[in-house]
Amino acid sequence: MSIEKIRDFVSANQLEFLDPLYTLLWQKSISAQNDGVVDCANLVMEMMKELGITTQLIETEGHPVVFGELMDPANTFTLLIYGHYDVQPPEPLEKWESNPFEPEIRNARIYARGAGDNKGQLVAQLLGVKTYLETMGKMPINLKFVFEGEEEIGSIHLASFVEQHKELLKADLVYTSDGSLHESGSPTILLGVRGMLAIELEAKGADRDNHSGNNGNIVPNPVWKLLDLLETMRDKNGKVLIEGFYDNILPLTEYEKQLLKKLPFDKKSVGEKIGYPQLEMSGETYYRKLTMEPTFNICGVESGYTGEGIKTIIPSTARLKMDIRLVVNQDPIDIFNKIKAHVSLHAPDVQVTYLGSMEPSRTNAELEVVKTVAQAVHQAFHTEPLIQPAMGGSLPNYVWTKILELPSVIVPYANFDQGNHSPNENIKIHNFLSGIVCTAHVIHTLGKVAREN
Amino acid sequence: MSIEKIRDFVSANQLEFLDPLYTLLWQKSISAQNDGVVDCANLVMEMMKELGITTQLIETEGHPVVFGELMDPANTFTLLIYGHYDVQPPEPLEKWESNPFEPEIRNARIYARGAGDNKGQLVAQLLGVKTYLETMGKMPINLKFVFEGEEEIGSIHLASFVEQHKELLKADLVYTSDGSLHESGSPTILLGVRGMLAIELEAKGADRDNHSGNNGNIVPNPVWKLLDLLETMRDKNGKVLIEGFYDNILPLTEYEKQLLKKLPFDKKSVGEKIGYPQLEMSGETYYRKLTMEPTFNICGVESGYTGEGIKTIIPSTARLKMDIRLVVNQDPIDIFNKIKAHVSLHAPDVQVTYLGSMEPSRTNAELEVVKTVAQAVHQAFHTEPLIQPAMGGSLPNYVWTKILELPSVIVPYANFDQGNHSPNENIKIHNFLSGIVCTAHVIHTLGKVAREN
Repeated sequence: MSIEKIRDFVSANQLEFLDPLYTLLWQKSISAQNDGVVDCANLVMEMMKELGITTQLIETEGHPVVFGELMDPANTFTLLIYGHYDVQPPEPLEKWESNPFEPEIRNARIYARGAGDNKGQLVAQLLGVKTYLETMGKMPINLKFVFEGEEEIGSIHLASFVEQHKELLKADLVYTSDGSLHESGSPTILLGVRGMLAIELEAKGADRDNHSGNNGNIVPNPVWKLLDLLETMRDKNGKVLIEGFYDNILPLTEYEKQLLKKLPFDKKSVGEKIGYPQLEMSGETYYRKLTMEPTFNICGVESGYTGEGIKTIIPSTARLKMDIRLVVNQDPIDIFNKIKAHVSLHAPDVQVTYLGSMEPSRTNAELEVVKTVAQAVHQAFHTEPLIQPAMGGSLPNYVWTKILELPSVIVPYANFDQGNHSPNENIKIHNFLSGIVCTAHVIHTLGKVAREN
Repeated sequence: MSIEKIRDFVSANQLEFLDPLYTLLWQKSISAQNDGVVDCANLVMEMMKELGITTQLIETEGHPVVFGELMDPANTFTLLIYGHYDVQPPEPLEKWESNPFEPEIRNARIYARGAGDNKGQLVAQLLGVKTYLETMGKMPINLKFVFEGEEEIGSIHLASFVEQHKELLKADLVYTSDGSLHESGSPTILLGVRGMLAIELEAKGADRDNHSGNNGNIVPNPVWKLLDLLETMRDKNGKVLIEGFYDNILPLTEYEKQLLKKLPFDKKSVGEKIGYPQLEMSGETYYRKLTMEPTFNICGVESGYTGEGIKTIIPSTARLKMDIRLVVNQDPIDIFNKIKAHVSLHAPDVQVTYLGSMEPSRTNAELEVVKTVAQAVHQAFHTEPLIQPAMGGSLPNYVWTKILELPSVIVPYANFDQGNHSPNENIKIHNFLSGIVCTAHVIHTLGKVAREN
């Protein structure tokens, strides 16, 4: 049983395995502040070279990508492992119990900036490779590695990097370890994200604010103009009325519906977490609405006087910001154009500004390769993984699924309370070690299936 | 011809007549800053006593009212003259060409804070009385005077003062000289004001802002809640849909329609003044909508993130302020209750807060006494006055028409470019003197009509 060999090896080497993680945690790599980023990339590169991975730094217009290959012409399957070596700024420093860049173990957790997000998981991936090599010998699949240095600043050059290196990045599956396991400790496989389109609507009345008594009923009010427009864009049940908005949405498969039903949902705890205790919906509805349906959210609106009391004016301008989450296969640019067309029809003098977007992405949960990964994760963690067809938020997962046209699975290794982006970020040593086991066993299982086919 | 005698007397005394005005202009009376207010009241009182007016300061919870009476049991008609002796703060001081409290004549105008608003007009009223007495001898009507010291801070105690002194204030007509003549130089008689109700609507979603990706479609958005509510309150043509909103509105009489038609209207100049050059409406429509119809104005709205770019949140709260101008006989409290009832029906969790109100007021333009004043003003100015049934803004005119149940006419004396509330406030000497003539001739004409009846 290979999984037992893997476990034994990891168990026997757990102290030694902390070394490379500590090395990276001691090295700052704050992408937002351009602090230590390239030094960290070089450390990652050395670590990979020691494992026999052919490694190079590939420049982008921002921080470099550490790219690696461990190839054997005999192998038929190629796994592309993605992670990031950059971290969030550590501030507020006074809230840390130990220095964020001097890793410390307390209560069987390693505390440091990047412990969970993402250095702990990146090192677990590399040590998984090492573990496989040392327990099983030859790699049964080809491996490619993309470790970027800009994830914490929005992966701003990842899409162009992938676009420019399509040939180099050819693979059969993209495997990411980032994010957290479910609160229950259950491993999670995440197969997609919602996309996003951010826009601003600006309505104008007169060229200046006017006295509401001396001009009321004469000067048009831009707030009413926006309101009237918005009401043509969405009905009272939240359905978006923009022509073609729902056109390209992939309906949920029966299997995805089953997956949603299986996801744990504690209404009370979710209600408390989001500050909305009156939440009333089933878990299935919750996950469907949250991950598989688009939103039409207003994230800000501003016009006129908003201080204490009253200032009797007719505002000259009203501005409203929306972020619209999208699901496969809605295209943000297509949706933006449809909104523009709608606005020209209903309120031609309202200005629509594009603020940003990200494409949605989803990997078919019924693919054999997804089932293979799920089986490996199940065995590695002794627990059936929760398979979430998509998450509610947006990540640049489309660079794999759309640009490279590859299936993409995200398998988080960090504990749910890792405190990523917060003070006292940590990874449980147990989770770090499980991650190593998981990576090795995923490699083993993918290799086994590849040989069988 | 009494009007000629009056004119001659004013002409002969014009230099001397500047004295009492200068006395008041040298005396600060900034109600908002409680600077010199009572000293100014005492000066006004002395001035009135010199004319033989029985005068007293009547305390309010704020600044005192200077009250006066010039009564003769033989007279059957009583005119109540209203004005105010307080002024706006003079800031910004650096924009004044001369000290705001050291009156200076330039280009046949007297420059000082209060020159037009309202000391120049108040003194013209008193000098009108003096002129009448000195040219004609005995007063043909009874006079009462209410000069308040809080007009510039919203006449906050005027209603309770009037309520408490109904008997003392008994009269047949209230006569106010405040505001400006029309730009054409035509005298104006203003017969009413719109009322006002100010409210705030507050909608709540969750207890805190939430991430729009991780909670989109789960947490309700308070902006949409407000929008949906507002769209039940008003249709796209601006018609208010709140039950009973229009119930008590007095329809325009044929005569009022004629008056509106006669009011001068220069679309281009109005459009430029309000910063809305695309203004498209007839003068009649303009004045009807501006003065005789209620508004349903949003003067401010605020929710979520409104800075640069985007912040992808679902806001927890949305707040919107409205000021709703009302026309006779809409009652602000009744309208507030109707709005509350509407909101409880359509969005019971939206909070409605009362921020303030003022009652609308209008004097019937067809009253004989109004026609008498119009005739006197016509003769005094050699020009037919523009009779405006109401103005778009709100003033506490209802204290006369509703609490005292009296007709009320407003006859401005100051030039249209008096710059009230602004630096370099002024009154043209010519306008100041015309005001004196007008007051004396109105007294004369009212007396004549009273004797004839």
